[in-house]
Formats: sequence, structure tokens, C-alpha cells
Amino acid sequence: MKRMNILLFTDFESLDVFGPVEAFGMSGQYDIHYVSMDGGMITNRHGIRIETEKAEPVPGELWLIPGGPGTRPLAKDPAFIERLDALLVDAGAILTVCTGSALLACTGRLDGRKATSNKNSFEWVKSCGRNTDWQREARWVKDGSIYTSAGVSAGIDMALGWLEDTFGPETAQEAADRMEYHRNTDADHDDF
Amino acid sequence: MKRMNILLFTDFESLDVFGPVEAFGMSGQYDIHYVSMDGGMITNRHGIRIETEKAEPVPGELWLIPGGPGTRPLAKDPAFIERLDALLVDAGAILTVCTGSALLACTGRLDGRKATSNKNSFEWVKSCGRNTDWQREARWVKDGSIYTSAGVSAGIDMALGWLEDTFGPETAQEAADRMEYHRNTDADHDDF
Repeated sequence: MKRMNILLFTDFESLDVFGPVEAFGMSGQYDIHYVSMDGGMITNRHGIRIETEKAEPVPGELWLIPGGPGTRPLAKDPAFIERLDALLVDAGAILTVCTGSALLACTGRLDGRKATSNKNSFEWVKSCGRNTDWQREARWVKDGSIYTSAGVSAGIDMALGWLEDTFGPETAQEAADRMEYHRNTDADHDDF
Repeated sequence: MKRMNILLFTDFESLDVFGPVEAFGMSGQYDIHYVSMDGGMITNRHGIRIETEKAEPVPGELWLIPGGPGTRPLAKDPAFIERLDALLVDAGAILTVCTGSALLACTGRLDGRKATSNKNSFEWVKSCGRNTDWQREARWVKDGSIYTSAGVSAGIDMALGWLEDTFGPETAQEAADRMEYHRNTDADHDDF
């Protein structure tokens, strides 16, 4: 199984994390690790207290960066952004959900790339990456080894899209069926 | 804010919990508590380690019982079922997701009621509640103060349905929109 690192921080959005986790978990292809900058207990506004490992940069690994209200202070924290950039230096692939795209944009890693994010916070996210080709109408966007999704539940569709691109359509559809989930399969269609 | 207790156990299904958590959290109406029979750290097959409080029966409270592979051994554990029944004695309302319905059925609290569950595990769930009027075709079922949902992602639709029944359609739709979630609004329609 391939290792997947999910980067948690105070006030991450619950479904940004556990929607993709369910899809990746159902596929049986990933060993999922919850990490944070310093390790230890991470909490959010939905009352979650979850244990994390200390994040380390490991070449070739898959990273998922969620959004949530906690991204607002972090996007203004140069020390956090510098550490995030260092973590991702040899990443195999990076997936962001919702305003997690803002954090990735702050590292400069979305410069010159197409990307998307939550539509309720779109102007703010755009301001975090002025050299990014932001896609207003997209459920998720794939640009090379970087996938970015629209808001919250869109992370589920992006994760299933990732499974389809990586393991084929049957693996993705089987995961969706076991979740009894009605997929949004068109990355370019967006109602929000 | 009203208190909501979410009962966790080893190998709960991630999205059964955090799909509804996102909907209830977005509504701003609930103080969400994660509880387990003995309190402490609860883990599942998706690598989650989450801290819980010790569950106590508090009159009038709202309970959510998720499903997942962990329900199989618990349904055969009379001591667990007895403790679950005691916890729910003065519950204001009970919501179950997926095979969480099997655990509730084992307490006898679904006897004579309509209910549903995951369709992949439907025969097993039915065997846990022989006096229940199981609904094969349903996204979720409301019977008095007990709501039961179909598999995994159906918990999100049930939670939004609960918000609609309790606070009105605007509260439910606003939560869904903020989640950028395409609702399944018809409880009686089921594709799985």
C-alpha cells in the first residue's frame, strides 16, 4: 500500500479530510497517516480531537491538504508556509481540498498552473496566488501531479477522480458504490 | 446549542460520522461530542485515532450511531448491546447511519418501526431486527424520533433531512450549499 499523508491543523474542515479518506480507504490502496507540523492532538470547530504524527518530507509520497477556517491565519504565517514548502519538496503528488488550495498557492507551487477552490472564498484564495490560472467553474482541476478541488464535498469527487486516473474507472466506481455515493464525474461542471 | 452525542467504537466507518458532522457543524446548531463506552482513544481502519468522552445517558439528548466493520462483533456482544440500550433510555432522538441500524435493532428499539440501512449488508442487518419493517428502497427513513439511513454517504442526506425537519428547508439548504453538496432530497429514492 502507498502511504498518504494528510496534513492537519487547528480548525481544518471535517469533510475536506474524511470525504477523501473514505474514498481512499474504500479503495484499499492507501496507508493513511494524519500528520501536523509538530505532531500531537489537533482539534477543530466540530469538536474533533485527532492524534497526528509529526510531518516529515518523504520523497515520492502523496499529500492531501484540506481547507477550513484554520487556513486564514496560516496563509498569513510565513513560518508555516516555509515549512509547508519544505515538506512538499519531493512530494510524488499533492491534492488540496477547498481553501487548502490557498495554502498551497502561498508556497508558490501553483504559480503558472491551473487550479480551483471553494467558490464562497474564491476571491480570497485568488489573492493568495496571483500567478495561478484560477478556474472559477470546476469541481476539481488536475494539473500534472497537483489536483485541487472546489469546496468541502468536492474533495470526494476529486478523490474518486484520482482513483480513476491512477487505478482505472472500475476501482473508482467500486469505491463510490460501496460508499453509496452519487459521483459528480465531470471535473469541469460546477453548480456553485 | 443543543448537544449531540456521536457514539464511536473500534472500526467505525469514517464518512458515516464525519458526513453528518459536517452538515450539523455547518448549521451552527449543535455542540458535537464524540463518546464511546469507556472513553479514551478510538481507532479505525482508515488510520484515525480520535479522542472520546465516556458516554453517559443524558435525558433529551440527540444520538448518532455510525456503522462500519466494527458493528459486526458488537452486534454479537450482549454486554455492549445492553449498555447501548441503557444509554438511549431517555434519548431525545436517535439517528443511525449504515450498519449503525443493526446495533440499534439489536436493542429492540427498532421493533415495530420502519427503518433502513446499507444495501450491501442488508440481509445481515435484517437478521439483527426481525420485528422491524425494513425498507429496502430508501435513502433514509424517519419513524417518530428515530432516523435511519442507507450506506455511508446517505448519512449526509439524512443529516440534511433532519436539519430540514427541525429548523426548516432554508437552514438545510444553506448548510448543503456551504458544503457545495448536491443533496439527495427524496428519502424514498434509492439507487443502491
